[in-house]
Formats: sequence, structure tokens, C-alpha cells
Amino acid sequence: MTELKSVAVVGLGLMGGSLARDLAAAGVRVLGADLDPDTLRQARSAGVVTGTLDDDASTLAVDAVVLAVPVRRAPELLRRLAPRLAGATLVTDLGSTKRSIVEEAEAGGLGPRFVGSHPIAGDHRSGWAASRTGLYRDASVVLSPAPSTTPEAVARAIDLWTAVGATTEVLDAAEHDRRLAWSSHLPQTVATALAAALADAGVRPADLGPGGRDATRLAGSSPTMWTDIALDNAEAVGAALGRLEMHLAGLRRALNHGDEEKVRAFFERGSDWADG
Amino acid sequence: MTELKSVAVVGLGLMGGSLARDLAAAGVRVLGADLDPDTLRQARSAGVVTGTLDDDASTLAVDAVVLAVPVRRAPELLRRLAPRLAGATLVTDLGSTKRSIVEEAEAGGLGPRFVGSHPIAGDHRSGWAASRTGLYRDASVVLSPAPSTTPEAVARAIDLWTAVGATTEVLDAAEHDRRLAWSSHLPQTVATALAAALADAGVRPADLGPGGRDATRLAGSSPTMWTDIALDNAEAVGAALGRLEMHLAGLRRALNHGDEEKVRAFFERGSDWADG
Repeated sequence: MTELKSVAVVGLGLMGGSLARDLAAAGVRVLGADLDPDTLRQARSAGVVTGTLDDDASTLAVDAVVLAVPVRRAPELLRRLAPRLAGATLVTDLGSTKRSIVEEAEAGGLGPRFVGSHPIAGDHRSGWAASRTGLYRDASVVLSPAPSTTPEAVARAIDLWTAVGATTEVLDAAEHDRRLAWSSHLPQTVATALAAALADAGVRPADLGPGGRDATRLAGSSPTMWTDIALDNAEAVGAALGRLEMHLAGLRRALNHGDEEKVRAFFERGSDWADG
Repeated sequence: MTELKSVAVVGLGLMGGSLARDLAAAGVRVLGADLDPDTLRQARSAGVVTGTLDDDASTLAVDAVVLAVPVRRAPELLRRLAPRLAGATLVTDLGSTKRSIVEEAEAGGLGPRFVGSHPIAGDHRSGWAASRTGLYRDASVVLSPAPSTTPEAVARAIDLWTAVGATTEVLDAAEHDRRLAWSSHLPQTVATALAAALADAGVRPADLGPGGRDATRLAGSSPTMWTDIALDNAEAVGAALGRLEMHLAGLRRALNHGDEEKVRAFFERGSDWADG
């Protein structure tokens, strides 16, 4: 059970749509907004969303507002919505990077009520059609407060995520972005680069075995979402890419020299990591 | 139903063990050999293997011999077994590279009866414990004949694989190795390099979301097997790695310059490929 009676979800794609479904199922009144009128219609006719932001008065009559839009659109959206958020005791987002949105919230005076959220959930599909109940069950959600966020706002964010079955962990926004450059943004960029190389060679997805399909699955992710994430976290992602290139170039040289020990050490390193 | 009455499987790991299980289930008498006496014991006590190669006389009394050992051990094993193979009408292997084993078979006089096999099946696990029935059901198997292979030997290889539910495609060994450098060896080396970079950054497998777990799954593959494959196909793998590094470096530069169009084009390229 959540103490939140009403939540506005802005952006009804995979992440926002799934959250809206779970909140509605938990008895929360959900207002929705989406750039795509069809998406909004579908969310309403599914009974998930019972009102739109535009239907409302100048102040949004909701307990919480969730921004579920690509990370580089979120700061501007937050600026635009800020004057209408007087009633909300929690403002959060679902972005995969946290530093810029937390900075924007603090700078725009929303700091006390703002807690950034990054749910480690979802997959390579996108849009309302991919949204589903239960996406956040047992998922881990990173919460990044702003410098002036109140303990009450953090408690409310924990309440929101607990209501949909997730567990939460509080982490500084900048540290979050550094960590995620490795654990999330690097795997995504690698899968995309692998897909691009395979495209160059005329290899299609159907030509791959099960392992190759796993390794390239993320390549199907939303280009819009990932263009935003990569640019928003460019420095840390660039550093991670450089490290990866070093390992690839090292293997290429070892193969070129027929250096069995180095080739073996390369594969053992990966295998040891996988074994924990 | 297969016309093969008896098959010797040398090496009872994931690939050889799974083939032995399916052949035994199809009523074929299976002789087995493995460097690890425990593995051989388990395969016998499971009723899969009913005899060993050492039990037999100087000529192996089997219709077919399958080498299921790491690719760089296969040529030497083939040389060693050649004098005992007079009775076999089919000699094949399960290696992920085909050029060196086919060359060895031809040079050693086994060409007419040799058909290299590469089943596109299996996963990152290895050993008898990972072997299972049904591994080859609906799998695609590449068959690479030697220059002097007879049509009868090819038909027998097709018979063998059809008996365990796989489909076959005939492909020249050198062309096979060039193609697989992209579709299999590149995804494997990328997953391993990604794991090594994550290890450098202190990121553990448990820190990853579902996408990162997919992208790194292959890193757990057998280092012995992959050291062999990479060295045996070094030139083609090196070329594929170079291409991948180009894409990664291109993204890194685009991020460094904040070049949104290039970053977007990168992610769109991967997404288009995934969409077929």
C-alpha cells in the first residue's frame, strides 16, 4: 500500500507506461501525458490513465509527478512544469543518467521535493506497446536526491517504488553516472558497435547463434533514448570506451603475434569475472 | 532413424557429450573417450557410452568417428587415430573452425571419408555436466567437406545430424572460417573484452541489469576452447576486431565533440540492423 493517492506520469513509453499500469493496479489515480496522442488514447482506454495533465488547472492536483521521457528532454520539461507543481510532494524521473536532472531540479527550486530515480529494469523494446505490469517487481532502483532534498521526499520516493515491488538504494547523482557508464552505458554501446560491425560484414541477426544473439540484443534499444544518455554522460562513457578499446586492441595484437599466453590470459580474465 | 549403428565420440564435453546422449537415445551404440576419467565414468554409468576406444582392437569397430575436442587439439588427434579408422565410413569433428582440421584430414589421407561439422549450438557452459539431450534439435550445422570427400561421406554426415534433429548446410572450410569470425568469434571476443573492462572498473556481474547480463553472458565460455578458436582463425578474427574498434573509436570521438548527429547515427545503425 502506498500513501500516494494520485500520480502524474509524463511519457507513457516502456518505463512510464509500465509504472502507470502498476500504480493504477495499486489503486492510485494516474494522470498521463504523452507526445503521441495515440499512446495517450490507448492508456486511457486501457483504464490505466484516468485523466491528462492538460485537463487540469494551473496547479496539477497530484501527490507526485514522474518524468518518464528521454534524459535530455527531462530538464527542459521540468522547467516548463515547475510552476504547476505546487501541490506535488514528490517530483521524480526515470532517466538512466541522474546528474543533469538533479542539477536542474536544484537550480529550479524544486530541490526539496526532488528525488531522481533510475530503475534498473526494462529491455531493448520501447513504447506503450512494450509496457507491462510487473516490470519493476524485484527491480533495483537507484535514488539520487538533490542537495536540498528533504528526508520526507526520499521517504515518499521509497514508498512509490515499494508500491510497485522494487527495492531502492540511495546514491549520489554524479557517482551514479560514473558507475552506470560502466555497468549499463558501456554494454549498450558495445552491443551497438558489434551490430554495426556485423552490418558492415553483411551478417544478419538470423545468422547468429544463441550467444551472438545475446551479445547483440541491446542493439535494438531506442536510438533516441541512447543518444541522449550517451551525450548526457559523454565523459564517463568515453573513458569506459577507451578502456574497452584497449582490451580489444591487446587481443588483436596478441593474435597477430600468435602469442598464445596473452590470448589465453584474455579469455581467462573474462571467464574469471563471469565466475565472480 | 539413422543408418549408423555405432559411433565413437572422442571428447565428452558439452558438445560431444550432448551428441553422445542423442545418439544413444536414437539406438546408436556409442563408444566414448575423454581425457578426464571421471567424465568417462559418468558417461558410462548414465548408460550413454557403452564402451571406450581403449577397449577396442587396433581398428575401431564403429561406423563413424566424431572428434569433439578443442580445435587446436583436433588435428593432432586425427593424426594419432588415423591408423585405427579403417572401419569408419565417416570421420567428422565439432570444431568452431574448419580450415585446419579439413587440411589435416586431406593431408593425412582421410579426405574421402572426412566431413567437418560445425553445429551452431551450445552455450557458455562446458563439460559433461553441461551436456544434455536435445542440444542439436533445430540447430543449424555447417558441413565442410575436404577436397576429396565423397558424396557418400557427405550423405552420411547429413544422416548423422538429421538423426539428432539438426539441419545442415554445406560450406567451404575457408569461407566458413571467414564468416564465423564475424558471426561467432567476434561476439565472443567482444563479450570477453567487455567483461575485462568491467573487471578493471570493479563492476561485478551482479551489478548489471538484464541487458548487461545478456551482453556479457558469453564471457563465461571456456577459455581453452576460445584460445584455440581465436588462434586458429587469428587473421579473420583480427580483421573483425579492427572493424569493431573503428566503430567504438568513432563513437568515442563523437561523444568527445558533442556531435549529436554522429552519436544518433551510431545508435540508429545498430537499431536498424536489429530490426533486420
